[in-house]
Amino acid sequence: VAGRGGVVQPSVASISATVDLAADVRGTHMSRFVQALAEYQTVLDPRACAALAEHLRDRLNSSRATLTLEFPYFIERTAPVSALPGMVDVEATLSVVAAESTEVRVGVRVPVTSLCPCSREISDYGAHNQRGHVEIDVASPWPAGDASGIWIEDLIEVAEASASSPVYPLLKRTDEREVTMRAYDNPAFVEDIVRDVAVNLRADVRVASFRVRATNQESIHAHNAIAQVRWARGSEQ
Amino acid sequence: VAGRGGVVQPSVASISATVDLAADVRGTHMSRFVQALAEYQTVLDPRACAALAEHLRDRLNSSRATLTLEFPYFIERTAPVSALPGMVDVEATLSVVAAESTEVRVGVRVPVTSLCPCSREISDYGAHNQRGHVEIDVASPWPAGDASGIWIEDLIEVAEASASSPVYPLLKRTDEREVTMRAYDNPAFVEDIVRDVAVNLRADVRVASFRVRATNQESIHAHNAIAQVRWARGSEQ
Amino acid sequence: VAGRGGVVQPSVASISATVDLAADVRGTHMSRFVQALAEYQTVLDPRACAALAEHLRDRLNSSRATLTLEFPYFIERTAPVSALPGMVDVEATLSVVAAESTEVRVGVRVPVTSLCPCSREISDYGAHNQRGHVEIDVASPWPAGDASGIWIEDLIEVAEASASSPVYPLLKRTDEREVTMRAYDNPAFVEDIVRDVAVNLRADVRVASFRVRATNQESIHAHNAIAQVRWARGSEQ
Amino acid sequence: VAGRGGVVQPSVASISATVDLAADVRGTHMSRFVQALAEYQTVLDPRACAALAEHLRDRLNSSRATLTLEFPYFIERTAPVSALPGMVDVEATLSVVAAESTEVRVGVRVPVTSLCPCSREISDYGAHNQRGHVEIDVASPWPAGDASGIWIEDLIEVAEASASSPVYPLLKRTDEREVTMRAYDNPAFVEDIVRDVAVNLRADVRVASFRVRATNQESIHAHNAIAQVRWARGSEQ
Repeated sequence: VAGRGGVVQPSVASISATVDLAADVRGTHMSRFVQALAEYQTVLDPRACAALAEHLRDRLNSSRATLTLEFPYFIERTAPVSALPGMVDVEATLSVVAAESTEVRVGVRVPVTSLCPCSREISDYGAHNQRGHVEIDVASPWPAGDASGIWIEDLIEVAEASASSPVYPLLKRTDEREVTMRAYDNPAFVEDIVRDVAVNLRADVRVASFRVRATNQESIHAHNAIAQVRWARGSEQ
Repeated sequence: VAGRGGVVQPSVASISATVDLAADVRGTHMSRFVQALAEYQTVLDPRACAALAEHLRDRLNSSRATLTLEFPYFIERTAPVSALPGMVDVEATLSVVAAESTEVRVGVRVPVTSLCPCSREISDYGAHNQRGHVEIDVASPWPAGDASGIWIEDLIEVAEASASSPVYPLLKRTDEREVTMRAYDNPAFVEDIVRDVAVNLRADVRVASFRVRATNQESIHAHNAIAQVRWARGSEQ
Repeated sequence: VAGRGGVVQPSVASISATVDLAADVRGTHMSRFVQALAEYQTVLDPRACAALAEHLRDRLNSSRATLTLEFPYFIERTAPVSALPGMVDVEATLSVVAAESTEVRVGVRVPVTSLCPCSREISDYGAHNQRGHVEIDVASPWPAGDASGIWIEDLIEVAEASASSPVYPLLKRTDEREVTMRAYDNPAFVEDIVRDVAVNLRADVRVASFRVRATNQESIHAHNAIAQVRWARGSEQ
Repeated sequence: VAGRGGVVQPSVASISATVDLAADVRGTHMSRFVQALAEYQTVLDPRACAALAEHLRDRLNSSRATLTLEFPYFIERTAPVSALPGMVDVEATLSVVAAESTEVRVGVRVPVTSLCPCSREISDYGAHNQRGHVEIDVASPWPAGDASGIWIEDLIEVAEASASSPVYPLLKRTDEREVTMRAYDNPAFVEDIVRDVAVNLRADVRVASFRVRATNQESIHAHNAIAQVRWARGSEQ
């Protein structure tokens, strides 16, 4: 997979591929999906996925093909004080609908820290916090010949900026102190997180539509707290 | 399932049942497992599971049968200040090995809150905390005719007493304040939690051996922290 | 949960409940969800779920509430020749959107046997077959005071009738012979299964719209074969 | 990961790493695990994993460290008649216990086809078959300086040879005919599969002990059929 800036990393994807079937055709040629994937030996980015989905549509004589790749994607992350390096993994998704036109979607599921504003406000000391994750799924034009679309890295940055703190692979004591106090200084409900992400994505001209969902693995409950926003440019939703 | 005190609750279990096969026998009679389970219409507690495993051993002409039931188990939990009621669900396990003698094991997976002692100590304010879970699996004699063994409820109480706080289904603002401050007052590493559980279980004569595992869904990392202790009465381990 | 014919069975559900949040409101009252569920002590059927979702909408002062329950649902199934009884479990879903009007959806995920028509046709003997599952999700009006909507049992029957054979909890040798040959006599691609289900559902006036998906855990591949149809009454889709 | 023959493939692993903690030490240095992994930039094979586990043991001042890597591992597989190429993925495990001595284990989970001997025998035509998987976990010495241990590829070959047929990523009609009839010609219960694997592994001097488990996703039931054998050289088990 090629990331922003052109750096390539290997990954392992779960792949879902479909075609629409005309009413008068009994079944599809399932082996052609596998054959097309086996033959496709190219570095993947959103535009390459779009080309592969268009190829599936044509090869299987269909009016519409979809392709979805889900894979772990790694980014380097240095500790905030000690600057020790490590890797954070994010679940990333590239999905394409190739019909008359081609729609490309880029998605991430980013682990974050969130700290509860209510708990902080009502308590003499402490505040409950927890691991959560922010899922963003964006439709973004990736016109051929021009790298103007959204990258996985862009979405990770937006997600982490809206939470109480990013998570880190490696923290020494000085780092842990920094992260603990930063989270306390940036409390956020899941409702706050999705709204903050939404404001950032609306302002980005590369974004045609999005779905944002924040989930907290509440540390004081056994159930999760979830907030979600959907939006499409040109429509109020 | 019958709980401590005899209260019965319905649940839905995943069941695993096996028998040992002699070297000169080609295969087992798989349908007899299903038939035995379908015919067994009794309230389950550890002793009833032991009887069912012994029945499987005999019915399938084997020297050894095992039976494991995994099921959600609900307990009532009132909020600490408002006293509003709700239900907490715990993953419970009853497992039996019926060979020359019969061993009964009772297990739970209890969600809890844990707050990091290190983070609290090194920070001017706040402390990272998270949802975690404590798994306890205990071998406990359940001699016929005398209800002297370990109950699921016993293990839940031990697990929760060792964490920074139990989790609650329902918390109003006054409750949330109480739980936030209680967790801050009771910091515990996963290592502390399993050792505390171990001390309690060793002191309980109904316990023949145990495995305890505590897992934190670390709020500042994307990985989990895990601690584990194994012990058997009469052996140092 | 109450089934068709009024028979009630206990089950354990995963519940998702949401409300829409007005733009000028910071957050919702999460504890009210739990409180409403804890107080709701009624036998559930689709209409009772609709009432609960409407109650959530009103209690949380929202314009729109959703409620989804996922739970195992058991039906009795006798073996085809020996007539020995057993239980089959189906994953069932009841979901409601309560806005200006209330939409009720009933869903199932039914395990089935499918046998490949192509494999049978091209081979001198044998035919690959496998476990698969048929998912059906139906929007069906459940007007108050009249039990005219779709039941879980209705959808199970439609799903099983379209596959090569139902699965059975308990089969003796005479039963296994019957099921083996029945599957061979009723080969079906996943495409055939979803189309057959679709024909049956369109003919049912209680069905407003549906999504049908059949998945084969292909026995000759490590990947699955999937087919899907969507349809809404009054629109060609 | 380096495979048999020295070919290297990138993969993405879930990693579990532990150390034993002395009774008088409160906790471990969790960040050192991550640091050791982040610094370890080497092609992995069983011997390199052993070295990493020994490094963890020393770096964390412990008497015993364990390391487990679970990752998808790909092998090329050509169709049996058309010879078209594709990739099969296997779940592989490398695990090490580094104490006074170091034990290395290699594991696989291989998807296969199994066809029921009983169903074939009692039916006039057809036989139920299904996807299953064979799990093998082998302790094998990997002495430094000599590549004499068991490789992932060795275990895959043993697993597939014992089933009714391997699975294939890509099959044209002529291939499907071949695989259908081959499975019919090689019926095997899960009990047969594990015994056949066991015979092969006992005869391999590189194998010190093993656990073999075969699981069928029974096509006529909603439950699975499972068989398991354990064995250690020098002990009857």
